[in-house]
Amino acid sequence: MKLLKERILAHGQNLGGGILKVDSFINHQVDPILMEACGEELARRFKSVGATKVLTAEISGIAPALMTAKFLNLPVVYARKSKPVTMPDQVYLTLAPSHTKGRMVELIVSPEYLANGEKVLIIDDFLASGATILGLARLAQAAGASLVGIGTLIEKTFEGGREALSTLGIPVESLVAISSMDNGKFEFAG
Amino acid sequence: MKLLKERILAHGQNLGGGILKVDSFINHQVDPILMEACGEELARRFKSVGATKVLTAEISGIAPALMTAKFLNLPVVYARKSKPVTMPDQVYLTLAPSHTKGRMVELIVSPEYLANGEKVLIIDDFLASGATILGLARLAQAAGASLVGIGTLIEKTFEGGREALSTLGIPVESLVAISSMDNGKFEFAG
Repeated sequence: MKLLKERILAHGQNLGGGILKVDSFINHQVDPILMEACGEELARRFKSVGATKVLTAEISGIAPALMTAKFLNLPVVYARKSKPVTMPDQVYLTLAPSHTKGRMVELIVSPEYLANGEKVLIIDDFLASGATILGLARLAQAAGASLVGIGTLIEKTFEGGREALSTLGIPVESLVAISSMDNGKFEFAG
Repeated sequence: MKLLKERILAHGQNLGGGILKVDSFINHQVDPILMEACGEELARRFKSVGATKVLTAEISGIAPALMTAKFLNLPVVYARKSKPVTMPDQVYLTLAPSHTKGRMVELIVSPEYLANGEKVLIIDDFLASGATILGLARLAQAAGASLVGIGTLIEKTFEGGREALSTLGIPVESLVAISSMDNGKFEFAG
């Protein structure tokens, strides 16, 4: 997606060690117009998969998932990383490693909003190792839901996430794929 | 706002102790169409205040703030509750009590995205005691920004937040105001 790629080139920062800082338009400050365009494009790519729900993880998945869900006219559920008082005692919970926190975090979804038979489209900001997305996939499977697609804004192809997700056997789409961040630069795939 | 009030009546749950559960359309599962309508209405109310940035707090402020910012064509910054590796060492940080966590949480904004002279519109899901919003106001003031308005989806007038915010001397708008949650019911103000 040209718009997002241009923004990464103009305002993304390669911090080294494979860390891409996009805090000025995705992860801390968010450009809602860009995010809406990304959501529209992800919705276009997944319009035929029959999703009944969009699933993401707090925090930075919320903006792209919300905008994608808007164009698909679907509810979006974001997995919580801590259980609020409003959630029932019995929940779906899994652990996934957090890149930015350097430890395992919980991903929690209430059975109230992820039902047996649901068709789940997972949307997140990054596809890196795929660990968070695999965690979301486990939550959906635990609920008896089926997975119909995975969409992300930015894929770092050199972290192997696409291979890790291949066992799920569902379409994986990313709007921009970065194949290398060596030497402080960005190289794009495709 | 009629649409939101109807949704609260149909799907909000009064859990007692002043806790309003809106997890099926705002706080865990989100209805993006409703959220867009709320954002449009908040943007309409604040279109003349001259805001240059929308400020909110992760997590549940993100959806309404993003949609409001979209209609105002402004960037939105969400205060983080933990400092990611992409953030500089020097940050604006304040503490605010969390209702749902029962403890103090940090609210952190990078100086990169909140600048001296900026005009800040704060958007959040709830106006209850006002403590989170006052925390966001302190961050804006620490950055040398001025506050131009505060908008929330749902106000619980019986928790005194509006009075707590009155010292700021800026317009405070809520789309729905609940004046009582006694006896398992909802009473609306106005």
